[in-house]
Amino acid sequence: MSQSAYRTHHATDVTEDLVGQRVKLSGWVDRRRDHGGVAFIDLRDSSGLVQAVIYDEEMARPLRSEYVIELEGEVRLRPEGNENDHLATGKIEIVADKIDVLAKSDALPFQVSTALENESENKLPGEDVRLKYRYLDLRRPSMQKNLKLRSDMAKAARNELDKLGFTEVETPTMIKSTPEGARDFVVPARLVPGSWYALPQSPQLLKQLLMVSGVERYYQLARCYRDEDFRADRQPEFTQLDMEMAFVDQEDVIAIAEQVIKAVWGAAGYDVQLPLPRITWQEAMDKYGSDKPDLRFGNPLIELTDYFKDTPFRVFQAPYVGAVLFKGGAATPRRQFDAWQDWARQRGAKGLAYVVFGENGELKGPVAKNLSEEERNGLREAVGAEEGDAVFFAAGARESAQTLLGAVRVELADRAGLLKPDDFAFTWVVDFPLFKRTDDPDDDDVAVGHSQWTSMHHPFTMPSKDWIDTFDKDPEHAMSDSYDIVCNGNEIGGGSVRIHRDDIQDRVLDVLGIGEDEANDKFGFLLEAFKYGAPPHAGLAFGWDRVAAILAGADSIRDVIAFPKAGGGRDPLTGAPAPISAEQRAETGVDYDPDEDED
Amino acid sequence: MSQSAYRTHHATDVTEDLVGQRVKLSGWVDRRRDHGGVAFIDLRDSSGLVQAVIYDEEMARPLRSEYVIELEGEVRLRPEGNENDHLATGKIEIVADKIDVLAKSDALPFQVSTALENESENKLPGEDVRLKYRYLDLRRPSMQKNLKLRSDMAKAARNELDKLGFTEVETPTMIKSTPEGARDFVVPARLVPGSWYALPQSPQLLKQLLMVSGVERYYQLARCYRDEDFRADRQPEFTQLDMEMAFVDQEDVIAIAEQVIKAVWGAAGYDVQLPLPRITWQEAMDKYGSDKPDLRFGNPLIELTDYFKDTPFRVFQAPYVGAVLFKGGAATPRRQFDAWQDWARQRGAKGLAYVVFGENGELKGPVAKNLSEEERNGLREAVGAEEGDAVFFAAGARESAQTLLGAVRVELADRAGLLKPDDFAFTWVVDFPLFKRTDDPDDDDVAVGHSQWTSMHHPFTMPSKDWIDTFDKDPEHAMSDSYDIVCNGNEIGGGSVRIHRDDIQDRVLDVLGIGEDEANDKFGFLLEAFKYGAPPHAGLAFGWDRVAAILAGADSIRDVIAFPKAGGGRDPLTGAPAPISAEQRAETGVDYDPDEDED
Repeated sequence: MSQSAYRTHHATDVTEDLVGQRVKLSGWVDRRRDHGGVAFIDLRDSSGLVQAVIYDEEMARPLRSEYVIELEGEVRLRPEGNENDHLATGKIEIVADKIDVLAKSDALPFQVSTALENESENKLPGEDVRLKYRYLDLRRPSMQKNLKLRSDMAKAARNELDKLGFTEVETPTMIKSTPEGARDFVVPARLVPGSWYALPQSPQLLKQLLMVSGVERYYQLARCYRDEDFRADRQPEFTQLDMEMAFVDQEDVIAIAEQVIKAVWGAAGYDVQLPLPRITWQEAMDKYGSDKPDLRFGNPLIELTDYFKDTPFRVFQAPYVGAVLFKGGAATPRRQFDAWQDWARQRGAKGLAYVVFGENGELKGPVAKNLSEEERNGLREAVGAEEGDAVFFAAGARESAQTLLGAVRVELADRAGLLKPDDFAFTWVVDFPLFKRTDDPDDDDVAVGHSQWTSMHHPFTMPSKDWIDTFDKDPEHAMSDSYDIVCNGNEIGGGSVRIHRDDIQDRVLDVLGIGEDEANDKFGFLLEAFKYGAPPHAGLAFGWDRVAAILAGADSIRDVIAFPKAGGGRDPLTGAPAPISAEQRAETGVDYDPDEDED
Repeated sequence: MSQSAYRTHHATDVTEDLVGQRVKLSGWVDRRRDHGGVAFIDLRDSSGLVQAVIYDEEMARPLRSEYVIELEGEVRLRPEGNENDHLATGKIEIVADKIDVLAKSDALPFQVSTALENESENKLPGEDVRLKYRYLDLRRPSMQKNLKLRSDMAKAARNELDKLGFTEVETPTMIKSTPEGARDFVVPARLVPGSWYALPQSPQLLKQLLMVSGVERYYQLARCYRDEDFRADRQPEFTQLDMEMAFVDQEDVIAIAEQVIKAVWGAAGYDVQLPLPRITWQEAMDKYGSDKPDLRFGNPLIELTDYFKDTPFRVFQAPYVGAVLFKGGAATPRRQFDAWQDWARQRGAKGLAYVVFGENGELKGPVAKNLSEEERNGLREAVGAEEGDAVFFAAGARESAQTLLGAVRVELADRAGLLKPDDFAFTWVVDFPLFKRTDDPDDDDVAVGHSQWTSMHHPFTMPSKDWIDTFDKDPEHAMSDSYDIVCNGNEIGGGSVRIHRDDIQDRVLDVLGIGEDEANDKFGFLLEAFKYGAPPHAGLAFGWDRVAAILAGADSIRDVIAFPKAGGGRDPLTGAPAPISAEQRAETGVDYDPDEDED
């Protein structure tokens, strides 16, 4: 499908087979070189590069980098010794005898040529400049590749879901605000002044309604919206591969999701072996200090609570004491251990205790002297260390201490170069608690209800079978039928079996402190739907931007989104968001005063 | 892929091959009948129906319509004479010996059972009730079929576009307001108080930027938003299959779009012959009184301006006089012709002149007596009528008179039963004017600029080659490289070659009365992008909801949208739009006062 009004071939179609033939190509001048009055042009199009030779100086004179040209000429083999093995078209060149400049280009604010990119990736300006000129940034081959990868991923997922009997359904994005743990973006409704739509944080309630509708297997690459403070790698709008199924249990959903993962990774050229491993939430916290453990490497947390149960060291007289082994850490200079303290304090910890196992069983480090002799003597064996290693400790409340050690574990692996981006370690995390405390300072989700408990996933998550009758009597320990899928320390998806019975839903809302009036106001339509024969159902959503970033080997999801927002939700390209005119504002109805209408 | 925790088979998997085997199925009780102490249940799932027989009265007792059940039993052939040829599973039944009620159902506000639907479609309540209980309305087989069709259409289009080398790119939906002829929905930006995003009316500018990026072939099933007054069959959010290509001309786009049409219609079981016919905009207006002519039937408009050039009849002393033949219309009673007058007046016309060709050449109807004898004598031949026919006339400004006659033409065909929904007559409409007058009272688009001219398509449409140098000197007659695709009188898609040179774009904006400051403010980023080597490009978008409705044989696009809005943008299901809390309002920043910040 290369043929169009502007070309007979794409660049990389032009191979030895075409030697002697006339071709017409169009694209960008990627690079121009001149040797002895002859101009050499690398012509770039969506397929790649091909070299054109121009003997006519008049014809060559106007051509500059990034000019858009249409070029005709005859294909010939390159003179011997001039072949370029790095190019698919490196054996031939086109002797151009006709060139039309379709569009000129000013000098670019930064270079995008393939040639330069291959030589060095590091000449890029800051991200704001890249985003302001996003249409140039996207010309770079690595960004073109990312866009193509994302398109291929979607194709692979859809084909797989189609095979599995799924129906793609588009759900609305101007909806009623629903309680899902973050702030909604809202849209004033001009035709109902004073009223607003919300943009969906996910199609959660709508896909559950589809199950009540009998769709049975639904999917959608759904645009979702969260009005959160911009941190690290968040975007105000993002995409999830959203799935929901009726008449399934957790095992069914996991099996189907694994097929999708295999297909999507396959589209990027990777073979994923199924089934994927699983770990319980408790084990993930205990062994890796994270509910999204990175399993590309080992080095699990070592619990020492029992070991230090009679310790004289005040700091270790804590509900939990644990450690992470720092292999070969004894060679670390003191000032680097000091830097670790800063690192820990930036994460909200008081510091990071450590011990170094020196030669001849000698223990060093500030903590060593605080331990009893017995503790010192047994420590190396207790943590499985050898001479020359070190260990980091954390002590305190179980979850926060484990979380700190989990972060140490990943940081150590990162510094040791163990986090290879194309080495994919998956795990399902299962057996999550149903609720979590609302006063958890490490958690920045907005609590859904008004009690001391909020949902670990969302209020529509089914308690696990053992807890159906008792979850409201012991919310602290109640477990849920929910599951996350983790890859390389990233939660790339998650879901749950949903509540399909209004009696269970009512009891969950009770625990959350959501009264009947509030429930009816916020999602009464779902509770109402459950009265008319709701099938058991369950679902899952993949964070599509994150999956794309992982597969692209990109540091940021912004590298796999065509037009992402910068910090604060700004778009340096278009200037959005922007003020609106007084007329536009009046029309939105946001200043509508119902009292004025009563005159 | 039928197997899950709740079933070994879907309903329609259960055929004669399984006789003697145990099966487990889950679904809804579509209908229950009792004969001599035996209960017969039609079990419905996403595949269809299967009959279960229950001999155990205890087991059968609780089962009611729309209960969700899991059922186990052995498959057997139905007793001779009891087969149901209308069902795929009509030769067998399942003798159920185990039934679990998974969910009960209250009595439904309206019936959804397949059995009833097959007997009569006409028991549905009004649309507000259908939308309030949309999850029940969607259980009806015809709605399930529509959702499935829409999913299949998307699959077919994507597969075809993939073959044609297209990349699917997701573009943002929180963007800068752009000038596209309708009102924007806007979203307050909390993090930049006083600023707003707009929801896109289309990805027009973004897809043009993708062309500047070198993507070359882009597509997306894109959600679009227009804050218009709700009329007839509009939705505040809608979907378009959006495409854009670089290095193509109009012929290339048309050829590719035709492949997509063939694939999409093919997914619905129809074979479309290519290439599709074409008609110029002028010819469409002259012959059919419409820029989206319905070509399922003939009966073109007859221009009589010349014929009546010396008429004594004041009404026909007009810039344009035309007629439409009403075959066999002479038999129409006078009161029906009166009703046609009302019909015309409702459309804003003064009335609808007509003449009846009676026996022996006699002319009847109120107009006949106003014509000259010569005009009366030649009229039958001039309009190609026979005795027993009638003609309707319109006289006045060419376009409005033609539009009235075009509507008469369609109305006549509709009353004659000629508008068969599964008879698809396509045509491309080409050679559109570049501009139209802003003061056209029949046009409710918002003018983009501030002059007497606005864009027929949009401001980024390329003048046709003949007019590149002169369009701004004669905006009235300038033509554009744009094209609409029409099916059965519906514009199902449209597009244009775009301007890719900033000099031409500047001149078009001049004609529209959009000054440099305004242009830079509104879409300066596009003009800026054109400075860095923008390839020639063109595109097209299909109105996806309309295409789905046509293929589903649905009267309204609401029947092919899972959760559509009712009039006024209301959602009777969720109650959206709705008031927001004072806290939510404060957070949106809409009441932000910059002066207060200066303290």
